[in-house]
Amino acid sequence: MMAIIDKIKEIFKHWSAIHHIVLYYLLAVIIATVVVSIPVFHNSGIELSFIDAMFTAVTAISVTGLTVVSISEVFNPAGQIAIAVILHLGGIGIMTMGTFIWVILGKKIGIRSRKMIMIDQNSKTLSGLVKLMLEIFKLMLIIEFIGAIILTIHFLNYYDTIGEALLQGVFGSVSATTNGGLDITGASLIPFADDYFVQFIYIILIVLGAIGFPVLIEVQEVLKGRVYGVNDRNKFSLFTKITTVTFFWLVVGGAIFIFLLEKDAFFADKTWHETLFYSLFQSVTSRSGGLSTMDVNDFSMPTLFLISALMFIGASPSSVGGGIRTTSFAIMLLTIWNYAKGNSSVKVFGREIHQEDMLRSFIVITTALMLCISSIIILMKTESFGLMEIVFEVTSAFGTTGLSMGITPELSTFGKFLIMALMFIGRIGIFTFLFIIRGDDTKDRFHYPTERVIIG
Amino acid sequence: MMAIIDKIKEIFKHWSAIHHIVLYYLLAVIIATVVVSIPVFHNSGIELSFIDAMFTAVTAISVTGLTVVSISEVFNPAGQIAIAVILHLGGIGIMTMGTFIWVILGKKIGIRSRKMIMIDQNSKTLSGLVKLMLEIFKLMLIIEFIGAIILTIHFLNYYDTIGEALLQGVFGSVSATTNGGLDITGASLIPFADDYFVQFIYIILIVLGAIGFPVLIEVQEVLKGRVYGVNDRNKFSLFTKITTVTFFWLVVGGAIFIFLLEKDAFFADKTWHETLFYSLFQSVTSRSGGLSTMDVNDFSMPTLFLISALMFIGASPSSVGGGIRTTSFAIMLLTIWNYAKGNSSVKVFGREIHQEDMLRSFIVITTALMLCISSIIILMKTESFGLMEIVFEVTSAFGTTGLSMGITPELSTFGKFLIMALMFIGRIGIFTFLFIIRGDDTKDRFHYPTERVIIG
Ligand SMILES: [K+]
Ligand SMILES: [K+]
Repeated sequence: MMAIIDKIKEIFKHWSAIHHIVLYYLLAVIIATVVVSIPVFHNSGIELSFIDAMFTAVTAISVTGLTVVSISEVFNPAGQIAIAVILHLGGIGIMTMGTFIWVILGKKIGIRSRKMIMIDQNSKTLSGLVKLMLEIFKLMLIIEFIGAIILTIHFLNYYDTIGEALLQGVFGSVSATTNGGLDITGASLIPFADDYFVQFIYIILIVLGAIGFPVLIEVQEVLKGRVYGVNDRNKFSLFTKITTVTFFWLVVGGAIFIFLLEKDAFFADKTWHETLFYSLFQSVTSRSGGLSTMDVNDFSMPTLFLISALMFIGASPSSVGGGIRTTSFAIMLLTIWNYAKGNSSVKVFGREIHQEDMLRSFIVITTALMLCISSIIILMKTESFGLMEIVFEVTSAFGTTGLSMGITPELSTFGKFLIMALMFIGRIGIFTFLFIIRGDDTKDRFHYPTERVIIG
Repeated sequence: MMAIIDKIKEIFKHWSAIHHIVLYYLLAVIIATVVVSIPVFHNSGIELSFIDAMFTAVTAISVTGLTVVSISEVFNPAGQIAIAVILHLGGIGIMTMGTFIWVILGKKIGIRSRKMIMIDQNSKTLSGLVKLMLEIFKLMLIIEFIGAIILTIHFLNYYDTIGEALLQGVFGSVSATTNGGLDITGASLIPFADDYFVQFIYIILIVLGAIGFPVLIEVQEVLKGRVYGVNDRNKFSLFTKITTVTFFWLVVGGAIFIFLLEKDAFFADKTWHETLFYSLFQSVTSRSGGLSTMDVNDFSMPTLFLISALMFIGASPSSVGGGIRTTSFAIMLLTIWNYAKGNSSVKVFGREIHQEDMLRSFIVITTALMLCISSIIILMKTESFGLMEIVFEVTSAFGTTGLSMGITPELSTFGKFLIMALMFIGRIGIFTFLFIIRGDDTKDRFHYPTERVIIG
């Protein structure tokens, strides 16, 4: 037994933290593909092809929600529970899982690796790190549990048996909290298009998943500190302030622009409360939720393009969401504004943004952009859909959002693989993706003279 | 007389260099609008509306080439010459013109302003600057003159009178060298679709205009230094190396990808030389030329999207072209690659890129991106065209390229104003555009502590 562990340690020794994370994700995809392929999880008479099984596995692991098959048609209740478990594990993050394995294998976690997992002032030690991850685990389970109870009770109004209501409640809560975007209603949240209570619960669960674990932990600690005086932590980090404010404005701004673009179109014959909830829900879900209370094809082109842009931005870092993440977007805007104003530094919330973080944000955004544009050009060549459908599908996959204009099941095998790759990259993040090509950390110590060039 | 000059000096004293440049461009647009409105320049029976006159003025000043009216239908030979003159002045750049006026007004040119005009090691003094600009003027005129002679002689094969051949030759040479994109054939270069000699001459003229003045001057000086030993300059600057190599690869790569995307479509029934020239010419013209040997609608969607991306990148800085410029694009790629590899600095051609230039490149790219995406969403709302047509039109305007899928004349008045604004911003450049909102150069001297955040 010890020999095996030693052997594993040996293999892992030469791998960087990033390669580990990517490896765990790939392993998770393989295991999930096997799980969803097991016939015992399928309804009778269902034949699930390898590519469709793999697509379902990737969409669940990456908590995206784009699907080539209907979950409720293909999978029986046992299969649906299995998918909920995969969503749950995918949502909490193989990153967290990976770190556990790592800690068990006794590998020393370097300062950079720890930063990759989470920036938290209180987890400077290994035990602090484990404690933190257990807290994430606990927190996610509590949120999912409370969500499931509320939804199950409410769903008794919709479904005949307690069993059915429970299955819908549990799956719904997990899919919302993990921003999984999958449904077992067969029609996303369209059956609840006029049930504002359900939508309200879903919005809260989606936001709690997409706002980022560090934010949840910090809020918890600050509350503890203020109410019980348990610790001396009573200030939020710059990260929490930036990501939360950006998240808030993306949701509010998104809803306002969706309203403005659709007020004479889709909303023309709707009441004010229908308009409010459609605008708000679509704005929230485009952060990374992926569930929808309507067929997005009912929106007009400018709105669909706006939603594509919102999906490209995505959710907070260290959350269940994908995309370029809120911090990159916020730092980009702040940097541009301060540069235009001629300020020597980027100041926000009484702090300054590090030059390296600015550069990182721009690197993430432009790399994501080139990735998406290349994918769009390739898919236009290999598939026979319009530009709008493809832009929407690509940004939805990269943002691990899961909204679609309906082309996912019609994609060619190549197209399915490309969308899978985008969901995968969206989930691990551009930053991790870029690190894959990095070799050993041998710093280049020599320097050339610097020479300025004309820009733009 | 002296009183007037003093008064002008007084007004100009509180203006930054950037505001001057923008002001001169606006003045040029007003003057050009008046010029193209003069009925003596029109063919008989032509009514040119104010908005169409202004659009023609902006397209000429910004050397873009998008048109709401046919130049050959609306303008008589005198009007066509007037437009050639506007193109010439627009191409050489109001920046150069502005600097002359400035020098005449005796205003001291600061180090930053001079850098805005051109980075040249030899022009540290005011007299050096004037000398440099006269050189640009001279160089452009020589190129246009030689081009006009060659084209006129060749056009004798096409046109009945020497006058007609001369008019076509002069207009063609000016339109090509300034990358003006306008034509008086009534059908761009489609009449010369199988005349490779004409296309070859146009390619050379377009490239000479779009490669950037500093490159031309440096090549001239290095040649002088090597051949005659006139000066000790025999090395190219980092700027020239980066911009030329990028320009070259954009043209070659663009042609290859156009070929790959169209080999089973538009090129399916074409000979190898037709395929070569169509691929090459469309790739060159998408840098910023704007003239076309074919109707771009004959291309398939992926190719049109690729060309949109190429137009967004645009030409070299300090050239007749627009877009984000080659240097921004190159520095973005270099920065991403070196960051992914974990290098501590960006090394290229035995030099290092300044951190500030990286940040500037990314600022230019992301600002341009947001500008174009916003414009696309707005135009989708106000116009009734498909996404592809609008993406193509917007990137063409921002890149001051002038290719169009044909929607320009059908744009609403609002749409025309938006496209004019994009042509204007594309011409002055994102960097200058951002400086417009900059106030007085009062540096913020206080600092906050730096705090890191999680990115992407
Ligand atoms: K999702
Ligand atoms: K042009």
